[in-house]
Amino acid sequence: MAPALVQSFGNPSSVHSVGRAARALVDTARDRLAGVLHARPREIVFTGGGSEADNLALRGVSRRASRKGSHLIVSAVEHEAVLETARDLEQFGCELTVLPVDRSGRVRCQDLAAALRPDTVLVSVMLANNEVGTVEPVQELAALVHERSQAVFHTDATQALGKLSVDVSELGVDMLTISAHKVCGPKGVGALYVRHGVELDPIITGGGQERTRRSGTENVPGIVGLSVAAELADAERTSEMARLGGLAARLGQLVQAGVPDALATGAPPGQRLPNFVTFAFPGIEGELLLLRLDRAGLCASAGSACTSGSIAPSHVLLAMGFSPGLASAHLRLTLGRSTTAAEVERAGQLISREVAALGQAPA
Amino acid sequence: MAPALVQSFGNPSSVHSVGRAARALVDTARDRLAGVLHARPREIVFTGGGSEADNLALRGVSRRASRKGSHLIVSAVEHEAVLETARDLEQFGCELTVLPVDRSGRVRCQDLAAALRPDTVLVSVMLANNEVGTVEPVQELAALVHERSQAVFHTDATQALGKLSVDVSELGVDMLTISAHKVCGPKGVGALYVRHGVELDPIITGGGQERTRRSGTENVPGIVGLSVAAELADAERTSEMARLGGLAARLGQLVQAGVPDALATGAPPGQRLPNFVTFAFPGIEGELLLLRLDRAGLCASAGSACTSGSIAPSHVLLAMGFSPGLASAHLRLTLGRSTTAAEVERAGQLISREVAALGQAPA
Repeated sequence: MAPALVQSFGNPSSVHSVGRAARALVDTARDRLAGVLHARPREIVFTGGGSEADNLALRGVSRRASRKGSHLIVSAVEHEAVLETARDLEQFGCELTVLPVDRSGRVRCQDLAAALRPDTVLVSVMLANNEVGTVEPVQELAALVHERSQAVFHTDATQALGKLSVDVSELGVDMLTISAHKVCGPKGVGALYVRHGVELDPIITGGGQERTRRSGTENVPGIVGLSVAAELADAERTSEMARLGGLAARLGQLVQAGVPDALATGAPPGQRLPNFVTFAFPGIEGELLLLRLDRAGLCASAGSACTSGSIAPSHVLLAMGFSPGLASAHLRLTLGRSTTAAEVERAGQLISREVAALGQAPA
Repeated sequence: MAPALVQSFGNPSSVHSVGRAARALVDTARDRLAGVLHARPREIVFTGGGSEADNLALRGVSRRASRKGSHLIVSAVEHEAVLETARDLEQFGCELTVLPVDRSGRVRCQDLAAALRPDTVLVSVMLANNEVGTVEPVQELAALVHERSQAVFHTDATQALGKLSVDVSELGVDMLTISAHKVCGPKGVGALYVRHGVELDPIITGGGQERTRRSGTENVPGIVGLSVAAELADAERTSEMARLGGLAARLGQLVQAGVPDALATGAPPGQRLPNFVTFAFPGIEGELLLLRLDRAGLCASAGSACTSGSIAPSHVLLAMGFSPGLASAHLRLTLGRSTTAAEVERAGQLISREVAALGQAPA
């Protein structure tokens, strides 16, 4: 990113040589990202982040398709950028079906089949959940949608990129969201894959950049950072997920051994992201636990960082059938590139100690 | 920006210490940018750029106000992010009045007064034009709007920041757009000032960041870069504009001396940005001139970089009353922080030489 910040500072839309150098960086980044996703370069729309990409998918398709119909289907465990956007569209004339999930957080094909209508224009189910790591059966869901309807299938792969294979052809999706900062890239940049032929209106209009799908001067350093980060994360995916899967299993054992009534949440291995370790601790106040863990040097979260400011229990855990009390006693640990085996041992001890301390404290 | 990219990589919405460190960077940046604009920190909404900020202003206010009315007024010389967005809203139920400008590109107060209606919800007139540098009488226009209507006044100050005083209280505007890369900051980040009490709907929904006005994980390095760049540009403004004003006058003299029939465009000194030098060269093909100048090492543009890809003559020059032919023979030169007196001498010679060469070439 540094050369794009310091040397190739031109505007990619300028016709002069400094502008063309910046344009070349964007073009190369688009080719590289398309390679990672098994897409065509012109199917990539760079955005200001994953939330904007989700909004573009939902708002863009529903507005363009408004003459054909206005029924949307999303799962109950979607990120707020999908779920809140669908609810917002509902206030402006769209009809919305929110699909339930099972106890592990997975959407059932029969529920989607029952929800599809002749006027359904878009179905959005994420590839992997950001709070419990559950992997959704996107390939089956997308096939079902294409077999039985005219709707466009969108998946938010923000959490999945670098952890699962994210191949748009294999998945059979029409639109797919990614975000750079979820693969150790920079914040403030993401992309929406839009299959050739899928029509959508822009949500940001102006100079007509990104083939009129997203106006605004391209974030050249961010786009370069996104493509390189996505490529690295995908290249290291198999070995890194094997390593983190082992560490996650060990951390799960340590927590379960230290806190016998800890409740593992989410899906079993094979149906969850390998780097996720999630537990509910009956009777424990999640926010207090987080504060104590943080003071001891362990950064964890209750659910999604995006809504940690809010006091409401996670909509994901509620949709999975957890009580508000148990949903508020949730801990999400995600292991990453820098996580070591020694840290996992220490984290396991810390969690056991702090949960015990909180459990013994007077209510 | 480097510490925010490398060390404080946390998500500002995370409650743990790494997240709080990132939050502190955003808070400080907000305070500093508010200081530059003479706004309150909570009145700053960080966005993914100037175009997004313009879209948020127009779409956000018109959607929120749709029950009160839906008449919009914008000037004919606005950036595409305002003009195209207003035209897009027109397709979806808003009524639009596009204000004419005089030969120098300025909006006349009486035209705005005549256009105001009881159902006008928003007026948008830029602070300084991005193609010819003309400064609009925003203070008078905003006062007029507030005296005679309930409408909200928005100004796109993207081109003005660092060149003029951009003081939201002095200007009396309700909303104001800025962009980082126009003040040597990073691409992909901007901000919308929204006066306390002005109501607008978000265009990107989700986790509810920026007090629900713009969802999505904050671009921490970009936000830091924007605030520092804006502060530096504003601090160096007086001395830098005096220096560049002198260089621009010299460049104007050189071009006028070398090309006697060159037509200076835009407003006279005092009503234009000091660093702008713009000319139309009758009978010359602007694109060809740009290519020749670029080959000789001079980066210039015809109008806005944002639409340079397009072949259509500039909407700004057409609105100023230029013929399509003359509008296509336009050259925009902007001087910046790194521009030297020697470069100005060389540019003046180059332009004279290349215009002469093109003028002698067979058509």
